Parts: sequence; C-alpha cells; structure tokens
Amino acid sequence: MSVPYPFSAIVGQQEMKLAILIAAIEPAIGGVLVLGDRGTGKSTAVRGLAALLPTMRAVRGCAYHCDPAGRMICSDCARLRPARVERVPVPVVDLPLGASEDRVVGALDLERALGQGIKAFEPGLLARANRGFLYIDEVNLLEDHLVDLLIDVAASGENVVEREGLSVRHPARFVLVGSGNPEEGELRPQLLDRFGLSVEVRTPTAIAERVEIVKRRDAYERDPEAFASRFAREDAAVRRRIERGRTRLAELAVPDAVLERAARLCQAVGSDGLRGELTLMRAARAAAALDGAEHVTDAHLRQVAAPALRHRLRRNPLDETGSADRIERAIGELFEPA
Amino acid sequence: MSVPYPFSAIVGQQEMKLAILIAAIEPAIGGVLVLGDRGTGKSTAVRGLAALLPTMRAVRGCAYHCDPAGRMICSDCARLRPARVERVPVPVVDLPLGASEDRVVGALDLERALGQGIKAFEPGLLARANRGFLYIDEVNLLEDHLVDLLIDVAASGENVVEREGLSVRHPARFVLVGSGNPEEGELRPQLLDRFGLSVEVRTPTAIAERVEIVKRRDAYERDPEAFASRFAREDAAVRRRIERGRTRLAELAVPDAVLERAARLCQAVGSDGLRGELTLMRAARAAAALDGAEHVTDAHLRQVAAPALRHRLRRNPLDETGSADRIERAIGELFEPA
Amino acid sequence: MSVPYPFSAIVGQQEMKLAILIAAIEPAIGGVLVLGDRGTGKSTAVRGLAALLPTMRAVRGCAYHCDPAGRMICSDCARLRPARVERVPVPVVDLPLGASEDRVVGALDLERALGQGIKAFEPGLLARANRGFLYIDEVNLLEDHLVDLLIDVAASGENVVEREGLSVRHPARFVLVGSGNPEEGELRPQLLDRFGLSVEVRTPTAIAERVEIVKRRDAYERDPEAFASRFAREDAAVRRRIERGRTRLAELAVPDAVLERAARLCQAVGSDGLRGELTLMRAARAAAALDGAEHVTDAHLRQVAAPALRHRLRRNPLDETGSADRIERAIGELFEPA
Amino acid sequence: MSVPYPFSAIVGQQEMKLAILIAAIEPAIGGVLVLGDRGTGKSTAVRGLAALLPTMRAVRGCAYHCDPAGRMICSDCARLRPARVERVPVPVVDLPLGASEDRVVGALDLERALGQGIKAFEPGLLARANRGFLYIDEVNLLEDHLVDLLIDVAASGENVVEREGLSVRHPARFVLVGSGNPEEGELRPQLLDRFGLSVEVRTPTAIAERVEIVKRRDAYERDPEAFASRFAREDAAVRRRIERGRTRLAELAVPDAVLERAARLCQAVGSDGLRGELTLMRAARAAAALDGAEHVTDAHLRQVAAPALRHRLRRNPLDETGSADRIERAIGELFEPA
Amino acid sequence: MSVPYPFSAIVGQQEMKLAILIAAIEPAIGGVLVLGDRGTGKSTAVRGLAALLPTMRAVRGCAYHCDPAGRMICSDCARLRPARVERVPVPVVDLPLGASEDRVVGALDLERALGQGIKAFEPGLLARANRGFLYIDEVNLLEDHLVDLLIDVAASGENVVEREGLSVRHPARFVLVGSGNPEEGELRPQLLDRFGLSVEVRTPTAIAERVEIVKRRDAYERDPEAFASRFAREDAAVRRRIERGRTRLAELAVPDAVLERAARLCQAVGSDGLRGELTLMRAARAAAALDGAEHVTDAHLRQVAAPALRHRLRRNPLDETGSADRIERAIGELFEPA
Amino acid sequence: MSVPYPFSAIVGQQEMKLAILIAAIEPAIGGVLVLGDRGTGKSTAVRGLAALLPTMRAVRGCAYHCDPAGRMICSDCARLRPARVERVPVPVVDLPLGASEDRVVGALDLERALGQGIKAFEPGLLARANRGFLYIDEVNLLEDHLVDLLIDVAASGENVVEREGLSVRHPARFVLVGSGNPEEGELRPQLLDRFGLSVEVRTPTAIAERVEIVKRRDAYERDPEAFASRFAREDAAVRRRIERGRTRLAELAVPDAVLERAARLCQAVGSDGLRGELTLMRAARAAAALDGAEHVTDAHLRQVAAPALRHRLRRNPLDETGSADRIERAIGELFEPA
Repeated sequence: MSVPYPFSAIVGQQEMKLAILIAAIEPAIGGVLVLGDRGTGKSTAVRGLAALLPTMRAVRGCAYHCDPAGRMICSDCARLRPARVERVPVPVVDLPLGASEDRVVGALDLERALGQGIKAFEPGLLARANRGFLYIDEVNLLEDHLVDLLIDVAASGENVVEREGLSVRHPARFVLVGSGNPEEGELRPQLLDRFGLSVEVRTPTAIAERVEIVKRRDAYERDPEAFASRFAREDAAVRRRIERGRTRLAELAVPDAVLERAARLCQAVGSDGLRGELTLMRAARAAAALDGAEHVTDAHLRQVAAPALRHRLRRNPLDETGSADRIERAIGELFEPA
Repeated sequence: MSVPYPFSAIVGQQEMKLAILIAAIEPAIGGVLVLGDRGTGKSTAVRGLAALLPTMRAVRGCAYHCDPAGRMICSDCARLRPARVERVPVPVVDLPLGASEDRVVGALDLERALGQGIKAFEPGLLARANRGFLYIDEVNLLEDHLVDLLIDVAASGENVVEREGLSVRHPARFVLVGSGNPEEGELRPQLLDRFGLSVEVRTPTAIAERVEIVKRRDAYERDPEAFASRFAREDAAVRRRIERGRTRLAELAVPDAVLERAARLCQAVGSDGLRGELTLMRAARAAAALDGAEHVTDAHLRQVAAPALRHRLRRNPLDETGSADRIERAIGELFEPA
Repeated sequence: MSVPYPFSAIVGQQEMKLAILIAAIEPAIGGVLVLGDRGTGKSTAVRGLAALLPTMRAVRGCAYHCDPAGRMICSDCARLRPARVERVPVPVVDLPLGASEDRVVGALDLERALGQGIKAFEPGLLARANRGFLYIDEVNLLEDHLVDLLIDVAASGENVVEREGLSVRHPARFVLVGSGNPEEGELRPQLLDRFGLSVEVRTPTAIAERVEIVKRRDAYERDPEAFASRFAREDAAVRRRIERGRTRLAELAVPDAVLERAARLCQAVGSDGLRGELTLMRAARAAAALDGAEHVTDAHLRQVAAPALRHRLRRNPLDETGSADRIERAIGELFEPA
Repeated sequence: MSVPYPFSAIVGQQEMKLAILIAAIEPAIGGVLVLGDRGTGKSTAVRGLAALLPTMRAVRGCAYHCDPAGRMICSDCARLRPARVERVPVPVVDLPLGASEDRVVGALDLERALGQGIKAFEPGLLARANRGFLYIDEVNLLEDHLVDLLIDVAASGENVVEREGLSVRHPARFVLVGSGNPEEGELRPQLLDRFGLSVEVRTPTAIAERVEIVKRRDAYERDPEAFASRFAREDAAVRRRIERGRTRLAELAVPDAVLERAARLCQAVGSDGLRGELTLMRAARAAAALDGAEHVTDAHLRQVAAPALRHRLRRNPLDETGSADRIERAIGELFEPA
Repeated sequence: MSVPYPFSAIVGQQEMKLAILIAAIEPAIGGVLVLGDRGTGKSTAVRGLAALLPTMRAVRGCAYHCDPAGRMICSDCARLRPARVERVPVPVVDLPLGASEDRVVGALDLERALGQGIKAFEPGLLARANRGFLYIDEVNLLEDHLVDLLIDVAASGENVVEREGLSVRHPARFVLVGSGNPEEGELRPQLLDRFGLSVEVRTPTAIAERVEIVKRRDAYERDPEAFASRFAREDAAVRRRIERGRTRLAELAVPDAVLERAARLCQAVGSDGLRGELTLMRAARAAAALDGAEHVTDAHLRQVAAPALRHRLRRNPLDETGSADRIERAIGELFEPA
Repeated sequence: MSVPYPFSAIVGQQEMKLAILIAAIEPAIGGVLVLGDRGTGKSTAVRGLAALLPTMRAVRGCAYHCDPAGRMICSDCARLRPARVERVPVPVVDLPLGASEDRVVGALDLERALGQGIKAFEPGLLARANRGFLYIDEVNLLEDHLVDLLIDVAASGENVVEREGLSVRHPARFVLVGSGNPEEGELRPQLLDRFGLSVEVRTPTAIAERVEIVKRRDAYERDPEAFASRFAREDAAVRRRIERGRTRLAELAVPDAVLERAARLCQAVGSDGLRGELTLMRAARAAAALDGAEHVTDAHLRQVAAPALRHRLRRNPLDETGSADRIERAIGELFEPA
C-alpha cells in the first residue's frame, strides 16, 4: 500500500544486510533470524529487499505459484505439465501474531463446502509464501503450536494438512525471516536451529550516525516517494548483484580444504549435528557468488562464520565468553591471519 | 449521548494537556499513555479534546473514511479515485475491556455470509478508529492477545486480518490513547514503547485546587450544557491553536544542532533504539508549532523531554533516581541553563 | 413472587440503612457495598427498600425505561421525542453468580436472527437495571470478566457492546449494591473504588436483640403478609422521607467551608484521587436532604465520613489502626467537638 | 427401578435418622449434610425415607408441581388459579456428579426452538426437586460452579435463569441432602453454612452390630422384596410419626426462655451470624413435634444442638477440642443437668 | 477379530486367575483391579476368560440386553414383559483411554435428532457392558471426570444421564476390571474402594518359567488357532467349573462364626466402613462355590483375605509392614493354624 | 513428491540401519525409536528405506489395505472373502505434530453425514498406516492424548473408535518409528516400552566422515535424481536382503539355550516384565534371517542386545554406569567371549 524504505538507505547494519542478501540468492540457507533492541529497524531491511527483488516465473493460476521448471511442484502442476507461465513478484508474506492456524496452514473452504457440498482446500499463508519469504515479527512471541508447525514445514519444505477431513500436501519452501528481541521471550532451540543465519543488530552509538538515521527516517515519513527516488540507483545496483550472484552460485564449487576447515571450525566451537557445516558451506558459497569471486575461500568462510554458527553453540559453563567471541577465537586458532 | 466535560475546564495537569495537543496535530507521534491515581480524571481530557477537534475530509461511504488526498488508503479507494468527499468528525473510538477480537479487528460478515453466501469483511473498531483516536481505559488490564494485535497494528499502520477464510488488509492509523493505574498491572515493554508520549497525573495537593475541581465536577454533573457553555470560548481558542499548529508543522525544520542534542540526551539517559530520538524530534517540532514559534529550539526539546523519554529508560540498578529525575539531570548537564 | 421482609422491621444496622437511603435519593453516589458475617441479613435491606420506593416515569415500550425528561436516553428515545409515558416500579435486578456475559450485557437476538435474518440487539440485565438497582450477592465471588464489565459500565453510565457483529451503546445508570463476606474472597481495588459507600454489618451481641431478630424472622417466614402489615405504616413513613429528600436535594448547596473540610479530611486519611471528596460532598448533601435540614453542615459530613472513606484508605504499614478508627481520629483533629 | 433398603432396617445411626426426619417435617431447616467414612450407608437412609413419605397435593401438569395452596408458586400457577389438583410422590432427585449446568438449572428447549422456532424453557433438576429432596452424593466433589448455583438457589428458594436469551424464575424449594467423606475434599464454608443440620456417621465398632449389618445387607441384596416386607410395619410407623409431626409443628410455640438459651448457646460456642439460632429454634421445634410433645423444652434443644451447630464453629487456635465437644461443654455450662 | 490367548495357557498368576473366576460367578463382588509391572500379561486373562464364558439369556432387541428374569431391567423391558428371549455372549467391553464421555454414558442420537427431529437416547459403552465386563487398561491414566462417572455408576448399578436435554436412567451392572501400573499414576481412594478384589502380578523370576512364557507367547503369535486348540480341553473344564459354581452359589450360606471372624479380621487390619466385610463374605462364598464345597469355611476366608482387603487398609505410620503382610499377620493371630 | 535420500548413501550409523531393517522384516518387533542430536539425519533413514521396500498384496478398495491372506482383517474383508487383490507400496505415513485427533484415529465422515444423512466412518492416519510404517518426528513433543492413543493402538494392533456416535474397530498394525532429541522433552515410560528397539545416533567426530556427509548432502540437494542413481545398485541389494530375510524368518527356530540366555540377560540388567525377552528373541531371529544364518546364535543376541534393552532398564541409584555399559557388562559376564 505504501512505498517501503529503500534497502540501500539503511545506515550501517552490514551483517544483517549480507545475511538477507545471501538468503535471497540461496533459499536453501534456511532462513534468517534478526535479533536486537527495539527501534533498530529490524523489519525495514526485509521489506526493502522485497521491493527490489526481480520477478520469478510461475505456473499461471497455481495457488502455490509453482516453478514451471522445478522439482518441488504441487500435485495439480505435476499432473498438468507443461503449464502456462507468468512472471510474478517474489512473495513476501507477513505472518501476523494473531493469525489463526487455519489461515497459516490452509483449511477447508467453507464457502464451497456449504454452498456446493465440496470438500475443497483453501490454501493459507504457507501456500502464499512458497518460493518467497515468510516474515514473522516478534517471532519469540509466536504461539507454541504455530512454532511447531513452522518447524515441521521449514524442515520438510512441504505443508502436510491432516484436519477437518482434509488430507493435503503441497510445496512450502520459503525463506523464514524472523525478528525479535531476546529479552522479551526465549526462542525454542528447535526453532533457533531451523534458521540458517542469525544476526544481531544494535542501536548505533556514534552521534553522527544516529542523527543521520533519524533524519532519513523523518524525510522518508514526510515524503516516501521523493525519498525512495533518491536511492533508486543504489537499489538497482543491489538487484543486479543478486541476479549475478544467483547465476554464479550454480557454478561455484567449494574446495575440500574449505569444507574441512568448516568442519574443524564447527568441532572447535562445539555446534551440534552437521547443520552448522552445511550452512557454513552454503553461506560461504553464496557470499562468494555475491562477491563475484572465482573460488570460495577462507575469507568467505570467515565472513559468514558468526551468523552461521552463533545460535548453534552449546553453553559451556566454564567458558563465559559470548558466542561471537568464541567463534572469533576459534577462527583465530584455525585460520591463517587474514 | 451527553455533553463532555470541556477540555479547557480541566484544572492543572499541564503536561497531560500538552501531550494530547501534540498528538492531535502530529499523529505520527505514536500515541499518549496517561498513568496515574484513580479518580484524577484521566479519561476526561481525551473526551474533551475530541469534542473540539475540527472535522476532516473523507471519502464518502468508505468504511475507513480514507483521506481523499492521502497516501495510506484502502484498496477500494485506491481503485476508485477520484472519490466523492464529505466532512466527518475525527473519530474517537472506545475499546471496551470486554471487546471480542472479532469486533476489534473486524470479522466475517455473518449476516451476508448466511444470507447471501458471500464472504464479506465487516470492519471492526480498528477500521472505525482510522485517522482518529483509539481510547483504552485501564489499558494495563487489556488481554494479552489484544495487546499483541494493537502493537502490530500501531507499528505498521495497517490491520492485517488472516482468519475465518478472510485475507484483508486496510489502513489503521490512529492515535492510541491509553490510561491506567500502574499499581494495578504492569504494561508490557513492547506496548510501552509504542506510546510516543507518556504522562503522569497525580491528585493535586493544594486544598483550593481540590475544592475547585470538586465544585466544577459537581456543577458539570448537575447541568452539563450550562457548564459547557461557560467554557465555550476557551475551547474555541484551543481549536484555533490546533488548526494553526497543523499548518505550521509542515513548514518547520529541526536544526541539526537540536537533533544532535536530542541524540546526546537519549544516549545520556540510556534509552533503547532510536525511537526516543524520533519522538523527541517530532514532539519538539509539534510543541514549536503549537507555540507558533519560528524555529524549533532547545526550549521545545526540554518541554517534551520527560513525556518523550520517561517510559523508555532501562532500570539502572546503581542509580535509584526516578525516570523524570534522571532526564532532568541529563538535561541540566547537556543544555545551557534556560 | 413473595412479600419481602419490611425495611422498617430490620433491627439495628443504622449505618447500612442510612447508606441505602442515601443511594435511593442520590443515585450519583455510586453504589453501596455491604460487607459482613454470614447470616446478618445483608440482602434483606435492599429487597425491603425496593418494595417501598415510589414508582418512576418512563417512556412506554422503551427497553431501558428511559426518563422522558432525562438527558441520558437511548438512541430510539432521542429520535422519537416526545414519547408516551407510563409509571413503572424502580427496577431492582438480581445479577445471579451463574449469569452468562450475554445475559448481563445483552446479545444478538437469536430468535430474530434465525427467524427473520435480522441482526437485532436483545437487551440484558444492565438494560433492565437502568435507573434502578443492580444487586449482586457475594459480589466478591463474581467472575473477573464480569467485574471488569461492571467497572466499565458503572464508571461511564453506558453499556457499550461490541461483539457478534453488534455495535450498540445504551444508558445503564444504576445503583450497584453488592454484598459479600470479605473472608471469602477479596474485592479488587478498582471495584471497591466504584462503590460510593461501604458499610459493615456485624452479628449483634446483645442477647435480647438476637432473640428479637430470630422471633421476627420466624414470624415473617410463617406468615409474610401478616408480618408485613404490622410494619406498613413505618414503611410508608420511610417512603415519604425519600420523596421529600429527593425534592430538597436539588436545592441544597454545599458551603465552601464544608467542601474545604471534606478536602482536608481526605488528605488527612490519605484517600487516592478526588473520588473521596466527591462522595463525601454528595453523601453529606443527601444526608442533609433526608434530615430535612436547611444547610449541609459538618454534622452531616461526620455522619457519612466512615461509609464514604472507609474503603478508600491506603494501608499505612506504620499505623495499625483500622480504617474506621483512622477516619474517627482525623475527624477528631479537624472538626470542632460535636 | 428397584425396592430401596427400608429406612427402619438401618442399624444404629440415630443422629442421622433424626436429622432426616426433622428435615422431612420442617423443610425450612435447610438441608442435611451427612459426613463419614466410606461404606457406612450414607445414601441408604435418604432413599429409604423417600420410599415411605406420604404423597403431596400438586397442581396437575405443573412442571414444578406447585402446592395448590402455597405461597411460593410459579408464574403459570399464579395466573391460572384455581388449578386441578393431583397427588404425587414427594420428589427425591439425584444430582449426578457429571450433570451439566443445563440439566441442573434448566435450559432452552432445543427441540421446540429448532422445530417450532419458539424460545421455551425446559425445566431442569432444580425444577424437579421443588418441594422435595435434592440428593448429592460426594457433594464435596461437586464442581465449583454448580456449588455456587446451589448456594444461590438454596438461599432464595428460587431458580433464576439468565442465559441463552432466557429469563426465567421459578420456585425451587427443596431439602438439600448431601453426603461426602471430608477426607476426600473440603466443603466450602458458604455451602456448609447452607446446610441446616450436619451429622457424622462412623463405622460401628461392635462386632455383633457389624455382623448384623452385613447379614441384613446380604439378605436385602439376595431378595429385596422379601427383605422389605419384613420391615413394612416399622416403616409405616415412621410414616405416621411424620404425618403427626407435621400437623403438630404448626401449633408449637417456642418459649422466649428457650430462644434465649439458644442465643446464649450460639454465643458461647461462637457461631457466626444468626443462622445457628434460627436452625436451633426450628430443629428443636421439629424434634418436639416428632416427639408429640406439648412444649418445646431445653431437652429438645440439647437433642439437636450438635447437628445444628457442629459445622458453624470457627476454629479457635487455643482450644483444640473438637466441635462436638465444645458444644457439649457449652451445654453443660448453660443448662440444668438433664 | 482374532483368537484370544487361552485362559488356561496362562503360566502361574494363581491369585489373579482366582479373582477373575470369583467375579465371573458373583458379579456383586464389585470388580477386580489388577496391578503390576509392564509386560506381565495383565490384560490377557480377562480376554481369555471372556472367550470361555457360557452365553446368557437376554431380551431380544433390548439395548441393555436385560435379563428376562431379572429385577434390574430397563423401563422398556419393564413395560413390555414378557419379552422374546435370545442367548447372547457375555459382553466384554473395552473402555479406550480416548473415549469421549458421550460414548461412555450415551448421548443424544444425532442422526435421529437431525433427521427426524426426535430426541432419542443412543446408548453408550455402559449400556453395552450391562451384565458383563467393563475392561479399562491403564485405569490409573483415565481422566478424572470419567473416573467420577464410573464410581457413580458402579456404586448404584444404574447409569443416570442428565445432559443435552436428555433425562435417562438404565441398568448398568457390570464387573469392572481395571489394570494398571501403580508407578505410573495413583488411583483415587474412591475408585480403589469400588473394586471388590485387588490382585498384584509380578514378573516371574524363575528362568524356566520365563522361558516357558516367552515360548508360549511366540507360539501363539505365530499361529493363534493352533495354539488355542492345544488348550481347548482345559478351557472347557474352566467353563464347567464356572457353571457349577454359579448354581451352587445361590444355595451356600455363610455361618455366623465365619461372618464374625471376617468382622474381626477387618477390625484388626483397620479397613474403613463395612465394604471389606461384605466383600470378604461374598468372595469366600464364591471361592467355596468354585471349590464345590458344602460349607463356607475359614479356609475360604483365608484364600480371599488378601485380594479382598489389601487395597482398603489405612496407612499406619508406625507400622511399616506392607498391606499383604499386615493381613497375613492378622490372620495368624485370629485363625487356627491351617 | 521428491526423490528421497538413498538408504545406502547414509554414512555410518550401523545400529540405526540394522534396527530399521529388523523392523522391516519382523513388524512384530514393535517399532524403532531413534534418539539423538539435531542434524544427524534421523528421519533420512526411514524415508530412504520406504523407497526401496518391495510392494505388498492387498485387498483392492479396502481402506485398511488388508492382507488377502491375513488373520487381522477388517470387518468388511471378513465378510466378503475372497477379495480382489492388488499390489500396493508399503505405506509410510507421517504423523505431523499438528494433526488433530480426528485425522489420526478417523472420524465421522461429515461430507456423507451432511449430504446423505449417513453416519459413515472416514478412516484416519492409523488406517492408512496399517501394515506399514507410522513415522513421528519429534515424538517427545507429541501431545499427551495422542501418545495415549498410540500406546493403546500399538499394544492391541486395533484402532477402537468410540466417539461422535461412532463405534468402529479396525486393524492398525504398523511399525512405529519415532525420532526425537531427549534433551527437548522426556518420553513417557509407557511409550518408551512400546518401542521394540531403541537406537542412539550421534554426530560423527571424524573430520573426513563429516566432510563426506556434507558433500553427499549437498550433491543430493543440488540434483536428487542424479545422486539417487549413484546408489541405485546398493539400494537394490538391500531390497533383496529384506526379501530373503522375510522368507527365512518363518523357518528359523530359536534354540532353548538362546532363550534361556536371553532371560538371564534380562534378569541381570533388571528389565521390567517379559517384553525385553520377547524383543530379544524376535530381534535376534530377525538379525539371523537378515544374515542368511542357519541358526539363531549368541552372536545374534549380542548384536541386538543394546537396542532391545537399552530403554527398558530401571535406574539403579548405586550404579552410575549408562544403559549401554550395563548391558555390555552383563553380556561379558553371561556369554562366552566372542
């Protein structure tokens, strides 16, 4: 309904912006969690990115806007190939805190059930978010049963509905973006683990930076269109970087030495399971693709180590160092000085 | 149904009256929270102001009374421009404690659903409050799920409904005015943060003032119309001050030096995020506009510092001083003596 | 269905009887709370008073029996003036503990909704109690959500219904009479504060008085009609005293000196807000009107000080004296010896 | 469905049998509470008494079987007098623990609502129990909201229904008989207070008595009809005693000296309110009527003192004596040695 | 659906088998509770017994399969005698943990209510279990409200339904068989008390016995029919013993000396009420009938003492001996050495 | 919808793979519980095995796909034999955490109930899983009432539905496969006990193994079909091993000496009941069948001892050794050195 704040007008917050760009070119990264103080513009970046993403090809009329060339498609598209194709914007779906489970997973279409006596499925927000972003503000305040659902779906890439006499499964692959303030409610470890990357944002302390932010925000609110046009060129540059990154990503290999280094790093910091290594590999490859690099290198690994591992560390009662510091120290011990 | 107690008949309570006037000319300020003892007439001021506000231009027939010249309009108005216009009073909507979620956010129109088989949306209190005031007495007793909803809507200016097979979003920009007694239930920090200004009212201690209040209240209750006419001229003066303030507000710039001082003040008292600075800037500008001043000055900043920051301070366990005192002390250190 | 126990047959309990008479001639007093042991006839007085009150003028056919000459009338009566008038008894409505919220505030009229497809409002107990008494036995056992509703309505004099697609507001001014045993459940401070007067009843200790009460009760239960006729003349005298008191009330002014004394008394005992002073003023004026006095005097103030202030005192941890004693002491210090 | 165990076949348990007989001739006594170990035949006595009670005169077709000569009658009977009369058994209604509130208080008659579109009231168990007995086994396990309802109705003798769009009130005077084991759940003081008499039953300790009970129980279960006929004559004698007691009751006066002694006794043991004295007076009068005595004497007072007061005593932390002992001691001090 | 494990193929567990046989010939015994470790075949015995019980005579078409010659019959059968008779198997009804209250007690027949507008009763599991067995596995995990219901019905032999506008009562006499592991949840004392007999099963410790059980279980699972036929003759012998026991039971008297000994035993071990003695008497008589004995003797009493009393003992804090040991010791002191 | 990760591409995790293969050829083993860290591919193995299992013969059109030659068949199949036969894949049914009880156990078919007025049963997930696998991810987060249901059904092999006026029972024999992280919620002992085998998976510590896993996972995600074809031959070999194992299983006898050794082992480690021995016997026999062995030997017993007993050990407070160690030690003492 209104012009969003431009992605490239965001002052500072490099880690958050990188994480969101990585997720935009490599959805398999598994979502981004943005944690931080109130009033640090956590939701601004996602909405800004959404506005500059290139459109995507989709089967016309499909409730899940399936990829005509994709493997994960719904049963209708599987039956009817080849399909007519249209270009649609990448969906960015808000999951409001008050959303009912019905609207999230989909439900019996009551209008058709009562009117025509047909037991049809009415897709929900998970359907709408397929191939795009699902954004949850205050994700730590989400009700437990919705968290369980999201964990299930985010893990499998499918939404399985078994209720009200319905038995439906459809693709639901999306980048989960959650924001929240950890002081207002802990995130359950299973949900934490489902986020590929986790970034922390803090209120900037430099007075000049603070004044600049306040001025930009005021200018935007007084005249959004005028403000957006000031950053149109920079936003277009970001869009091109994303498009080039996607193309390059498919071609980039990760050398075994880098993989081994990733494994040693995970072992050193003590992350559970292998999801840390998978994320490190994918995030480093995506960072390299965004850079336009020829090879994935240790430098890319270092760049993504903190967001990829920060939320996967077990508490070590004898080591009071914070997550980020422990990762830094492990990097210092394992890697050549940069 | 009855004549409200005149705004200008309120004895004392300058801070509260200023805060409400600021919100009336700058809705972006983000709401006013009025905290205090029982029996101090917290709700009287809002109802009094509502009675003297000038009417506003609205699209005729629109459930959200969209601004014909506005940016934030509903999808119907977006489709049908230009629209027929009417003048309507600024809505002041009560949110009673027993209100159901349905009535607050809107719901499926059962009459049409059952009668005509159409899945239509029946707007709720948030729709009705668009462009006006939403008043919640005893806001600290509000049920948590309604608080969550209000936080969401107040932050985005939109009401997103995803339930009962409905998927609706409409503009819902209003000045949230809450009153409550902090002794009877804490406010959640997220909700506190959404209020731009926070004022405290106390029972006056001067006997003459107390007797005057009781006499005015008794006179009002015995004959409201007669009492109101006694203050009609003063109320008209307030209305003109509001109208002139709104005009001036659009032209007033905030000098960088004032902005920087606002930033230093926020840093000194330790408010989270940047919402404190944004509020300080907007409130000072509005105070200047109400004053008919040419420039926003440090004096305006000082005038609004306490209501803008009081509810944003972290508790400092080593500093037992109250919020208002800490702000006063920081002002004393940062500003020239007035 | 049966003849109530006559008001004037009640043995002793002077404070309770005065409080109920005051509420009967000055409804703005804000309700009476009767607290005490089990088996002390707390509910008897209200039912007895109801039986002897004069009838009142009301708009014929109005669900809220609006006053044809009143300011607070329902929207139908506002539209249709002048109305046909009838005389009706003052309503005394029981709010049983098991009452559903629907029946209290009113609800969608299902009969008309299902039968004629019309969304009509079916008024509830609050509508029925308008201009009369709402009696709640064991008010401290009432469910919290009903307490919240009653606080809201008692404060505003209006019942605002926002549920089931209904949006209705109608006048609901009544004298709230609650009884309860404080040992079986505390009253919330907000509800306490809504009661204008609070009286305590105790089991009498004099044997002769106890025997007299038991004998009267037994005589009443064996033959209510015969018993009632024994007290008919005394009840008629009370009715006349009420009628004369109402007439006189409109003419009685409260001298500033008395108002100032009331303010000092409230300050001395430390009641919150100004509701204590308002109640003192109104109760003293009503007591004077009942007395047939020419002026409101300090003597009237003393007569009502305990019931008007007893429930508004903050606990002072250094002062173990009970509420009544603290009020007595403050009177002793502020007033001339009577 | 089957022949109940004869009342006169109960071995021992004199106090319980007296209490039930008193309630049978003086319903105003306010119910009987039977407390004791499991397996002591608490429910047997009520069912046995029910079988031998004389029938009563009732309005034919009335859902509340109103007394054609009574004062407390339903609105239909009040409108249609004189009515056709029939003789019906005294109702003894079981309130099963799983009963829904609907069935207890009555509810909307769904059959007629759906079929004929009429909002009719379908009376519940309280209606059925009018003028008879309401029996609740394991009364201490009853759900709180039902306990609240019963307290309300038992106090007023009316059932007031305000739900589902219904607004009904009908007479509901019954003898509440509750049984329970205090070790399995406390009774709320308000409910305790509503029972006029409270008796305790214990497992007999004499071997011969125990063997006799077991033999009678076995004989009864093997052939109920044969067993019942063995006690038919004794049961008939009890029935005549009840009929004569009822007649005599209306004529018996309680001398002031006895009333005064009752008041002193209540004061000595420290029962709250005046319900203790009322119960003592009524129970002593009923005991005298059962005895066929000419006057109510101290001896009758002593006979009923324990069941009338036992459950009304406040715990005195300095006096460890049980309730029964404290009553005995007070009697010893106040009365002439018998 | 499948052939159950034969009753006579159960290795060991004499006490449990005797208890179940007693309940099979004397339903008045009041149910059997089987407590013990997981994996000890607690449910096997009941299902095995059910398969070998003789059929019973029942009124054809009666939902409660009333006994054509019985005293406890339903209202339809009471009206229509004499009835047509058929032979039906003894019902053995499972009460699954997830059963709804509706299905247990019966409910409004929705099919007929919606289709024909008739308020008919659809009988539930309690109806189906009449005159047979109601089996509850994991009885200690049953929801409290179902436990309350079962206690009520088991005590009265009737199912009283007062819900959904229904008011039905029908016979519901059954042998309640519950199994459970006391380590996984305590049984409420009232429910414990309703079980006539209580037996404990333990994992056998002899290796040979364990191997034999495992071999039989494996043989049964690989080919149930073949396995069952191996024990057909032994099962038939059990059936004849049950039939002869039932005939003899009606003729066996219990000598007063045995009854007195039972009473002394109950007093010695301190069981509450008289249910212990009743159960001892009935169980000893049934054991004698199963034995084909001429008289009930002390030996029969000793045989059933532990299962009849074990669950009725109060904890004596000064006596740490287990229930079974206390009963043994009391027997040793009261009886002649066997 | 997508190609699963091939079973034979799983690196390491021998114990888990053996347990799943045993369950695939001997469903009576009673389910497999897979416990371990997040991100160790717990769910991968089940989905991989499902893809390579041979099809099975089933009655065409039967909702439970009954075995045409089976003993446990539904009532329709029992009535209609012989039936038409088809080959269907072995069902592998997901039980999502958000599944409603209705969909799990089956429910009234609302479409037919409303449309045709017929009370038909709509089978649920338990019906669909008959003769196959029921997979529950995060089984320790499953709601308690579903856990109760599954315990009941898993124990009996039947689904008994008693709700909404339905009374249905149908075969529901399946291999329950649960996975979970014990750190995120304990499993109830009764549910633990229902799982025949319990295996633990851990994150591998060897760097080379970790790198290999990450590379395979990445390769699979980039091109599932290509990756799967790399392992097609190995998967086919597993399928043949399963088919041969099933044939052999029916012929393999377990020598008494092995049975006795199993019993001694259970006694030594102190497992409750006899389910440990039954599982040991069946698992050893299945392991022998998979091996193509002629006889079941001690070696097979040792191979399955840990997964069969690990979750059945009581905590011994004096023995801090873990479950696996205690089993190893008992084996060392009872068996010949291997």
